[in-house]
Amino acid sequence: MRTRAAVAVEAGKPLEIMDVELDGPRAGEVLVEVKATGLCHTDEFTRSGADPEGIFPAILGHEGAGVVVEVGPGVTSLAVGDHVIPLYTPECRECEYCLNPKTNLCQKVRATQGQGLLPDGTTRFSMLDGTPIHHYMGCSTFANHTVVPEIALAKIRPDAPFDKVCYIGCGVTTGIGAVINTAKAEIGCRGVVFGLGGIGLNVIQGLRLAGADQIVGVDLNDDKAEMARRFGMTDFVNPSKVDGDLVAHLVALTGGGADYTFDATGNVGVMRTALECAHKGWGESIIIGVAPAGAEIATRPFQLVTGRVWKGTAFGGARGRTDVPRIVDWYMDGKIEIDPMITHKLTLDEINHGFDLMHEGKSIRAVVEF
Amino acid sequence: MRTRAAVAVEAGKPLEIMDVELDGPRAGEVLVEVKATGLCHTDEFTRSGADPEGIFPAILGHEGAGVVVEVGPGVTSLAVGDHVIPLYTPECRECEYCLNPKTNLCQKVRATQGQGLLPDGTTRFSMLDGTPIHHYMGCSTFANHTVVPEIALAKIRPDAPFDKVCYIGCGVTTGIGAVINTAKAEIGCRGVVFGLGGIGLNVIQGLRLAGADQIVGVDLNDDKAEMARRFGMTDFVNPSKVDGDLVAHLVALTGGGADYTFDATGNVGVMRTALECAHKGWGESIIIGVAPAGAEIATRPFQLVTGRVWKGTAFGGARGRTDVPRIVDWYMDGKIEIDPMITHKLTLDEINHGFDLMHEGKSIRAVVEF
Repeated sequence: MRTRAAVAVEAGKPLEIMDVELDGPRAGEVLVEVKATGLCHTDEFTRSGADPEGIFPAILGHEGAGVVVEVGPGVTSLAVGDHVIPLYTPECRECEYCLNPKTNLCQKVRATQGQGLLPDGTTRFSMLDGTPIHHYMGCSTFANHTVVPEIALAKIRPDAPFDKVCYIGCGVTTGIGAVINTAKAEIGCRGVVFGLGGIGLNVIQGLRLAGADQIVGVDLNDDKAEMARRFGMTDFVNPSKVDGDLVAHLVALTGGGADYTFDATGNVGVMRTALECAHKGWGESIIIGVAPAGAEIATRPFQLVTGRVWKGTAFGGARGRTDVPRIVDWYMDGKIEIDPMITHKLTLDEINHGFDLMHEGKSIRAVVEF
Repeated sequence: MRTRAAVAVEAGKPLEIMDVELDGPRAGEVLVEVKATGLCHTDEFTRSGADPEGIFPAILGHEGAGVVVEVGPGVTSLAVGDHVIPLYTPECRECEYCLNPKTNLCQKVRATQGQGLLPDGTTRFSMLDGTPIHHYMGCSTFANHTVVPEIALAKIRPDAPFDKVCYIGCGVTTGIGAVINTAKAEIGCRGVVFGLGGIGLNVIQGLRLAGADQIVGVDLNDDKAEMARRFGMTDFVNPSKVDGDLVAHLVALTGGGADYTFDATGNVGVMRTALECAHKGWGESIIIGVAPAGAEIATRPFQLVTGRVWKGTAFGGARGRTDVPRIVDWYMDGKIEIDPMITHKLTLDEINHGFDLMHEGKSIRAVVEF
């Protein structure tokens, strides 16, 4: 079949909107009509050429929601008409990783996914001239239709609005999951969140959901504070306005250091600050942000020997097929908010404008609706 | 009273054996006759002048065992004749840290302890000319008698031999506790231990006690392998004999990375290797070794984002008054071994020779008996 897609033809170039060929689903695969997709910094990281593992041409996008149109042979958990969210971290429920309760990093299709291929080592997308187009993070939601492995689709309730819950495919789950699955934050804890973009806001509402007593947001941009307060931030710190040492300031503000700190900036210097303002004895710092290629985190080992723990999280530690439908329920039940974070709606033809909004800091999340 | 002690008069100088004055115990304090004390690298770190927080003159030593001779006013948990192990990490059971199950870093007397003083801000030791002599790590076991806060004494069974269980005051508890309290290693896990000195050997026997399936020891000195095997090491790796990348070698040897890795070297480069050979998704690396002043650990944040956890441990995460008597029981019951690690016995007059043995790598533990 033919479908309409935004294709990353070359690193650093704007996406090109075009018709592409899409082969039908093979064994264990599912054809999904994408109804909406968010634009994430990770898409931009790859589009821009900064991602050393970027492969081109490719159809980017990994934060979508849609409807099952066709299932390939052997698919048993999904049927035509099911509403789904594609998962860049699949959940096969049978690999060594899925069977270990300590991780969500299913490895079943990782090797091919990293090469921009489906598990059989081929692509379903191609240019009209036959040139194969790579998949991206196993999702490729910047296309009106995409083919995804069955194990990489979360089945969600049919009454959830696509243009909102698509955000659960990455940002919402990453932020809330970092609090709930990775930090396992307890009622009454104190948290510090560095970076009040889309991920940071979701960390904040994750902390609120977990019953945190204090939620400190840190950002260089004062304009971010209002929205963060709406999601539960109790204290705002602009590092450029702090006299003296930021770590000491945050330690004092949190009564000795935070129980949990989160980096949602990708800046390795900020990651260090986040670790060092965690409470001596038990504070945990969780890295969410993606650092530039080659960048390294550093600290004195004394920080760890005195009880701080340094962790990271990918997709919020969520097992997508299990956890994403629950988060959709939380949204539908009003336990979490998404609507105020969807600041812009675009058509596929306007997708490059979405990256402009991102760079200008004007959007929290821009969503393309098909 | 007068007692005999080895005094660190000045940084970098040999200890001087002399008679010193010792005041009796004040409120909440206990006078202990030290029967035996181990010589630890941390004592040497301070004696040598490398410790930026070293204070002189001081009576070093923090790995002792002895008998209560006198108790000060208000002491209720100990009586004359009780056998005790002094604790450089006390356990008051009432501070914010003691009441948090995630840490063992009791802060009750920390400020004064770090200044070489007892909790009332004074010293009990002095030179015969009246010059005060500082306490060290709240213990000062390089003296035949010492005064220690009640909360910094573990009461142990009276049939345990002082010249063996003194080692539980630091090295044994640090190594075994890192496995049991900090890593919480499970039956069937795989562990890698860097550095096969006294701490490393105790990590190894901790892993054996925890039921590890594989215990890899890493050391540049082949001569360390024999003793490590005796304590449970299953595989030995000498990095100088590994072709290619050590991390890749250890990941392959452990079938994808170790569940738990431990640095017992204090070398920040080794700490990085230890982290990076931990298993993707769930491997935890625990820093035990004390790094040189100012040294920093570093890695790419991707190592954490993909599921590795970086931790540290002090005194093996043990709450001394509670845990140390249990470890003494384990020794008396034959669950753990100590005797082969006590390689040298010295008199107090020979104590400087103990540091020579340490530097020459000839001792695992030298113990001074009074």
